[in-house]
Amino acid sequence: MSKTKGGFTLPGESGYEALTLKMADKWGADVIRDSDGTVLSDEIVHAGYGIYSTICIIRDHNEWAKKNQDKLQQTFLCTPAAVAEGEELTISLMDSFFTEQFRINDSAAAMKYWQVYDRTVNGLVEAGKWTYDQEKGTVTIKGIVPFHKYTVSFLAYRIWEEISMYNHTTNNWDKEHLMQIDPRYPETQEYMLGWMKNWCETHPDTTVVRFTSMFYNFVWIWGSDPRNRQLFSDWGSYDFTVSDRALDEFAEKYGYSMTAEDFINKGNLHVTHMPGTDRKADWMAFINDFVISFGKKLIDMVHSYGKKAYVFYDDSWVGVEPYNGRFQEFGFDGLIKCVFSGYEARLCAGVDVPVHELRLHPYLFPVGLGGAPTFTEGGNPILDAKKYWNSVRRALLRDKIDRIGLGGYLHLVEPYPDFCDYIEKVADEFRLIHTFHDAGKPYSIQTKVAVLHSWGRLRSWTLSGHFHETYMHDLIHVNEALSGLPVDVKFISFEDVKNGALKDVDVVINAGCAGSAWSGGDNWKDDEVVTALTKWVYEGGTFIGVNEPSAVEGYDTYFRMAHVLGVDEDTGARVCHGKWSFEAADPEGILPEGTTVEGKSNRYLTDGTARVLLADGEKPLVTMKDFGKGKGIYLASFQVNLVNTRALYQLIRYAGGEGLSGLYMTDNLYTECAYYPESRKLVAINNSDRQQTTYIPTEAGVQKVTIAPYDTVIVEL
Amino acid sequence: MSKTKGGFTLPGESGYEALTLKMADKWGADVIRDSDGTVLSDEIVHAGYGIYSTICIIRDHNEWAKKNQDKLQQTFLCTPAAVAEGEELTISLMDSFFTEQFRINDSAAAMKYWQVYDRTVNGLVEAGKWTYDQEKGTVTIKGIVPFHKYTVSFLAYRIWEEISMYNHTTNNWDKEHLMQIDPRYPETQEYMLGWMKNWCETHPDTTVVRFTSMFYNFVWIWGSDPRNRQLFSDWGSYDFTVSDRALDEFAEKYGYSMTAEDFINKGNLHVTHMPGTDRKADWMAFINDFVISFGKKLIDMVHSYGKKAYVFYDDSWVGVEPYNGRFQEFGFDGLIKCVFSGYEARLCAGVDVPVHELRLHPYLFPVGLGGAPTFTEGGNPILDAKKYWNSVRRALLRDKIDRIGLGGYLHLVEPYPDFCDYIEKVADEFRLIHTFHDAGKPYSIQTKVAVLHSWGRLRSWTLSGHFHETYMHDLIHVNEALSGLPVDVKFISFEDVKNGALKDVDVVINAGCAGSAWSGGDNWKDDEVVTALTKWVYEGGTFIGVNEPSAVEGYDTYFRMAHVLGVDEDTGARVCHGKWSFEAADPEGILPEGTTVEGKSNRYLTDGTARVLLADGEKPLVTMKDFGKGKGIYLASFQVNLVNTRALYQLIRYAGGEGLSGLYMTDNLYTECAYYPESRKLVAINNSDRQQTTYIPTEAGVQKVTIAPYDTVIVEL
Repeated sequence: MSKTKGGFTLPGESGYEALTLKMADKWGADVIRDSDGTVLSDEIVHAGYGIYSTICIIRDHNEWAKKNQDKLQQTFLCTPAAVAEGEELTISLMDSFFTEQFRINDSAAAMKYWQVYDRTVNGLVEAGKWTYDQEKGTVTIKGIVPFHKYTVSFLAYRIWEEISMYNHTTNNWDKEHLMQIDPRYPETQEYMLGWMKNWCETHPDTTVVRFTSMFYNFVWIWGSDPRNRQLFSDWGSYDFTVSDRALDEFAEKYGYSMTAEDFINKGNLHVTHMPGTDRKADWMAFINDFVISFGKKLIDMVHSYGKKAYVFYDDSWVGVEPYNGRFQEFGFDGLIKCVFSGYEARLCAGVDVPVHELRLHPYLFPVGLGGAPTFTEGGNPILDAKKYWNSVRRALLRDKIDRIGLGGYLHLVEPYPDFCDYIEKVADEFRLIHTFHDAGKPYSIQTKVAVLHSWGRLRSWTLSGHFHETYMHDLIHVNEALSGLPVDVKFISFEDVKNGALKDVDVVINAGCAGSAWSGGDNWKDDEVVTALTKWVYEGGTFIGVNEPSAVEGYDTYFRMAHVLGVDEDTGARVCHGKWSFEAADPEGILPEGTTVEGKSNRYLTDGTARVLLADGEKPLVTMKDFGKGKGIYLASFQVNLVNTRALYQLIRYAGGEGLSGLYMTDNLYTECAYYPESRKLVAINNSDRQQTTYIPTEAGVQKVTIAPYDTVIVEL
Repeated sequence: MSKTKGGFTLPGESGYEALTLKMADKWGADVIRDSDGTVLSDEIVHAGYGIYSTICIIRDHNEWAKKNQDKLQQTFLCTPAAVAEGEELTISLMDSFFTEQFRINDSAAAMKYWQVYDRTVNGLVEAGKWTYDQEKGTVTIKGIVPFHKYTVSFLAYRIWEEISMYNHTTNNWDKEHLMQIDPRYPETQEYMLGWMKNWCETHPDTTVVRFTSMFYNFVWIWGSDPRNRQLFSDWGSYDFTVSDRALDEFAEKYGYSMTAEDFINKGNLHVTHMPGTDRKADWMAFINDFVISFGKKLIDMVHSYGKKAYVFYDDSWVGVEPYNGRFQEFGFDGLIKCVFSGYEARLCAGVDVPVHELRLHPYLFPVGLGGAPTFTEGGNPILDAKKYWNSVRRALLRDKIDRIGLGGYLHLVEPYPDFCDYIEKVADEFRLIHTFHDAGKPYSIQTKVAVLHSWGRLRSWTLSGHFHETYMHDLIHVNEALSGLPVDVKFISFEDVKNGALKDVDVVINAGCAGSAWSGGDNWKDDEVVTALTKWVYEGGTFIGVNEPSAVEGYDTYFRMAHVLGVDEDTGARVCHGKWSFEAADPEGILPEGTTVEGKSNRYLTDGTARVLLADGEKPLVTMKDFGKGKGIYLASFQVNLVNTRALYQLIRYAGGEGLSGLYMTDNLYTECAYYPESRKLVAINNSDRQQTTYIPTEAGVQKVTIAPYDTVIVEL
């Protein structure tokens, strides 16, 4: 591969100026970045590279924060349910929470949003029955029902910015806790705009300001007990956007008030993995509106200094919502995503923004994810790099990413020349693939896939955070498999189904546990959805259901699409019903040898017409049923790996009538390829740790390609 | 053991008169019985023994049945849901049902109860939209919604009595199908009473008439396809009691009409394992009322001939209900139960009736349960007998059974003299234990146990049928374990809890899957129940929850008793919540070594205060939490075996403050014992297949007992 330059962001390091410039040259960097808390030296800044600077607009303002303790960010907290032993009960509000993270907001403005609930009957306790003791931090409830249980929901200031709290405690730092200020207040906005102006003026060499990210962190509530420190964490939830002021403004704008219970939800909060409510949707829109309107002022200011503004799609990203159709209003010039997985690369690539940049792993830190050694004794950074690149590369072949980069402390790479050589190769490979994308889209099969869940397009590709945080959901495995397949994929909601979204779709995938956002929960009570999908399958579509697809209580079948799938789940009422016997068989070889599916209990064939392709004893694992001109395909679960990814691809091809093999499909499932018709370039990749040979049918005849472990081969047709 | 006589029912066999009398003498029989379809010879009948004769009042009347095809028994059937491809749909009613079992009842009286449902919206289709084609056996529905799915619920005569149908098809018989006639009609009643009178007059030697059983079989619906022959079977359900006449009479009596849907229940029918409805309760009461009122006429007639009337508690038992408080109205002299398990012996013993008799296994048939050889090549009838006796014996030690007996073909025992010797020993042992019961109740610990489920006393000990039919439910394992423990047990309903049933109870057990009758389902929405149990635990009771105890959707916890258990289940909303870490420890040895509990997913500690006694990785298996003066104990599941039975006993003792060992408790868990204070007899049993030695603390000092495999040792104190 020839030496090229550009599209690479290098973390510079002061004190290692020579190394910085040497690696910038080796890796073809065009931009050098600082990292949180580091400043680049003049020698680096003036070496002719573009300069990225990171800012976190809501923290690092402790001096102002200390003077404005009433303008810190907040959240609702709910005490654990306490059982009343008599007609009076006293609850200590902070007992179960991390007092270094939270401080009760007992201002009158906040207290009007506090709520006491009788959780035994799920009823609000009237305000006249409880009193607050500010000194003790307790609420006493009187005149209540003995042996019912009660909770207090209250507003609390967050007094330690969560990302720095995590880094601080993990690394045993000994420095002042950083606080986060809330731009909801005019005073904060004025302060932030002044700060931003000053920053721009004092950083004349910065060409790109990287926002990390906007204002509100994903929710991360810590507890008082080290045995259960992290009480709740969800990358997609809006709990940390709340404040009495925001609640007041919401009521003004929407004509109704959000209550503590709208956030607390019986103590469960509203995890992204469950379907949302209309009120939650209103709140998200309300916050998004604010983040855009004030965020745009900061971005405009950055632009007015001739700098570009990128946003880091992590941490304080809440309210940014790159997939809700309004993201363009910010005016961002680029979006940066740190990636472990292919779906994260697609998540980044799919956003409508001029520049898409990936922050690759491993970061240049002594230890990586979960504390495993990386650039330190016992680490193998080159192998890590190969594996991460291997996960991401297949997605990069499908959709265009404009830039890649690394993060961390550059000096750590010095003892690892192999690593430096490998990154050089990756960077060159990336730039070459970028040129193919520039010339035109890669070849895809005709079959179009839609993933159906309750968030639809808003949560395209991701569920909520990284793979290792969401591995328990079938859909993240499906998304990861799809991220590198030569198949056009879109993400649709149940509303979309009713509005005609099935028109240009051949395969719909619905994957997840009953009641989850991914399966769809109560959305399946809408008979219009069921009828539209039934008609669509009857006319030729294929519905692929995974785990508990279309599951909802209250109907003759638990899976609302059971008549199409030929498979349903018994939730107990059918324990005395007979079960269809079957012989599993896959004479066409639709599933590659080695396909594995974890079995689930209580799945049964409804009418015996579904063919069982794979089974575990009496548990059907993969089934296929003809329904009109279309099909229902059921998978008991889905775990992403090379064989299962191929199985999913073959099921999709088969469903779309495109056969089990064909143009630009490798015959070796450890390999994949992408073909760029405009460039006439065939890129074949080896996803395994062993050398592989594969044959690839192309318009120019069958190509035989042999590929080293994890390597890439590019063939000109 | 000294030779005794009585309390033993021997199956006589004509043609084997000498053998019959020899075995009667050897086993101490006082009664000789015939079997279905066999007649005893005069030599046997006049040998001085009591004579049991079996009758099945609803079958063996084919001649009358053929002339009264409109008085056969019936059932509701529901076609599988069919998807409409247009605005018209034709459904063939019998396609999926076994046509040798059912015939459509399309009389006007029946058709007014037919229903067509749109299962997509769960709505009734108005009668004007569908028509029935008698010749084709089809219903055509017009003017409907394309791609919705529809069912037809209709009445059908049952034209093959199910027990004989099963025996017929299993044994490939080639004889006329027996039909079952319905006593609901005055003509049938007149016929039956005439038949009964004639029978009594022509059977002067019979001393006991055994009814097998009364009128209505448990539900057993067969399908057309051999791949799924048995569509539905439930020992406890009332589906086979229905008829247009009964429905009309019900409406008259109760002031409202039962509909097809009340039975069909979206196609699921109403399995006993799910909670019932008020309408189902009314129907059951209505049928029970009828079975008593007409049954009593038959029993009175038997009595008028100087004979006793026993009822066999199986097959056509529906509507007999020995545990609903009205059973005594029949006037039965005895109740006979065939038993595989200890709980069935307790089920029999607990009924308020003069004589309790058990039909032991193995039956004297060439093959036994599931087709395994018994009295034939490859069989080991003595081992079978020991194992079955072993299961039943521990229950017999706890509650008094008056008689035992065998069934089948006596001549089959001839080649098995060891078997004959063993039965002699069992019969003597049984008679001896009976004398101990006669003298007074066995010793029990102070701690009183109540099993809480939605049927309460009505379904004491059993769930629905035999263990091998209900093994998937935790509660049958619990009941089987309890059946032989020295603990007083009662079965209570949720209504009982509200009516003060907890007053004299120390431990409440609630065991089963969410939504099941055994866990309780929607009964847990009643906050009175939750509050009463909470208060009762707080004041010293112990709530033992197994699997998904008190589970119901809609509250802050899925387990309504989570605040007492300290354990809950995440149904998806808490996937992003932190979990309490724990170290499993049982320093007191509450659980014997070798206790096993199958783990369940998504169970978690609510507040970290429950002690985890046993765990499987991060899955808590057995936990214990202090709550007030009482305790909450959670078991993820329960599987009956010797170690786990001991574990349950120790948990109960511990909960009741009686320690882990004590008076009349063996120190070897492979053994158990019962002590009869009035007789001063200690009965020690070995439940294992190896010799065991155990020490037993008694008021007369510690006894050391060594017991042969499966054997019994009786010690006089």
